[in-house]
Amino acid sequence: MLATRTLLSKKAMAIISRQPACFVHQGDYGNWGNTNVAVVFSGCGWWDGTDVHEGVYTMYHLSRNGARFQMFAPNQQQMHVMDHMKNQPASGENRNMMMESARFSHGQGKMQMQDLSVLDANSFDAVIFPGGHGIIKNLSSFMKDGKDCKLHNDVERVLKDFHRSRKPIGLSSMAPVLACRVLPNIEVTMGYERDENTRWGSWPHTNMVQTVKSMGARHNVREPYEAYVDEKNKVVSTPSFMWDTDYHYHYIFDGIGNMVKHVMRMSTK
Amino acid sequence: MLATRTLLSKKAMAIISRQPACFVHQGDYGNWGNTNVAVVFSGCGWWDGTDVHEGVYTMYHLSRNGARFQMFAPNQQQMHVMDHMKNQPASGENRNMMMESARFSHGQGKMQMQDLSVLDANSFDAVIFPGGHGIIKNLSSFMKDGKDCKLHNDVERVLKDFHRSRKPIGLSSMAPVLACRVLPNIEVTMGYERDENTRWGSWPHTNMVQTVKSMGARHNVREPYEAYVDEKNKVVSTPSFMWDTDYHYHYIFDGIGNMVKHVMRMSTK
Repeated sequence: MLATRTLLSKKAMAIISRQPACFVHQGDYGNWGNTNVAVVFSGCGWWDGTDVHEGVYTMYHLSRNGARFQMFAPNQQQMHVMDHMKNQPASGENRNMMMESARFSHGQGKMQMQDLSVLDANSFDAVIFPGGHGIIKNLSSFMKDGKDCKLHNDVERVLKDFHRSRKPIGLSSMAPVLACRVLPNIEVTMGYERDENTRWGSWPHTNMVQTVKSMGARHNVREPYEAYVDEKNKVVSTPSFMWDTDYHYHYIFDGIGNMVKHVMRMSTK
Repeated sequence: MLATRTLLSKKAMAIISRQPACFVHQGDYGNWGNTNVAVVFSGCGWWDGTDVHEGVYTMYHLSRNGARFQMFAPNQQQMHVMDHMKNQPASGENRNMMMESARFSHGQGKMQMQDLSVLDANSFDAVIFPGGHGIIKNLSSFMKDGKDCKLHNDVERVLKDFHRSRKPIGLSSMAPVLACRVLPNIEVTMGYERDENTRWGSWPHTNMVQTVKSMGARHNVREPYEAYVDEKNKVVSTPSFMWDTDYHYHYIFDGIGNMVKHVMRMSTK
């Protein structure tokens, strides 16, 4: 560092020292990053939308690894609103997915939440669907119809377009059900295939694993801190909150980090 | 590691190898961690509650650093509900702070959201208030009354009890206004004192910095990735989303990480 300083002119040093230290990063002095990722939300909360941890971890890892990203959600009512204290539907409430998803974006600037209907695969290098029950309640009818579920029209279009364009698709927790329904013969992980309840956590949603298998997908067992990469189809998945844990959030954080990095590696930029 | 293995009996090795690799962590084989932290929420969303990023980052860093934590929020109506797309109040909506805060906890097991009225400083080593407009709308009347604001009774009680017990208090973004109102002569950071709008972000809330100064607090300029430590009063603060950014979430993540680690260092355990 000292050696470098002696080679720089006083003028160059004056410019450099005006930049706050925290902003010195590879992408800061021009376009921010090279990879442009679309992230699709379905509300705000584990039981009726996008899980707050999975959504925030996804945005964090994209930020840390120098990606640009844009956020999308359907501009439509959620299936229902869940009381997250009691884990049961709250009567008489309606919420709009795009408005609730905007709680992740602060609703400002480049990060303004967009209507999913305008998401065009040609404008992005990859797409990521963070998990949560919004996947099976709002973005598909999986909650009601299981393996015969229908996908939200825009979700089906987006998945098929990115897959056809050979652009990576990232999925966490329940999100693999979407891809397994409309993309043939893909490989995913949703964690363990049997509920092994330990002092560290449990796997209460393993019935979903059986269902994606019956859809024709191949399932691979992975730990919460891992991601499974289907290189052929460019589909990357991580178990995330398929694993139910009290204090061990950082394992899920690491799994989403691995998913995001594989998605970025396989993107065309 | 190889040397260690040779010293272990076959039986011990068999037990160790049955533990999934991801669960091998300092605290896993007994109590999880030594520090027990209370985290206080005020809803779910930047414009009317606890910011989802600040809440999730706080829980992540506590998890990563081996702390136990318990979540609390007042069991009362929010001041109002904000449409996060338009940044304006949504008419005719009411939400309960504890129910909305439960979106951070999945509402289950040890992580069940608790009523703030039962939070007892004797049962915890430290307390953290993640930021968001819930701080100035729900936990205090700062939004309406500025420097003459009143704090929610339980918030005032909790802050005074932890301070009196010499237990650390962690604060992010707007949360310092709470501590500055009821604890005399403390030192905090809320980021920059003037709005310096750059391509990387801006500081749109600097009027709050002037207000906490007029409350008698001393303010220290810090970057988003830093924390300021008032060692005497055991108050740790970080600018967080006082800085408005499009893609640079990881600087805020680092700031909250530093805040959490100082809080844990100064705790009595």
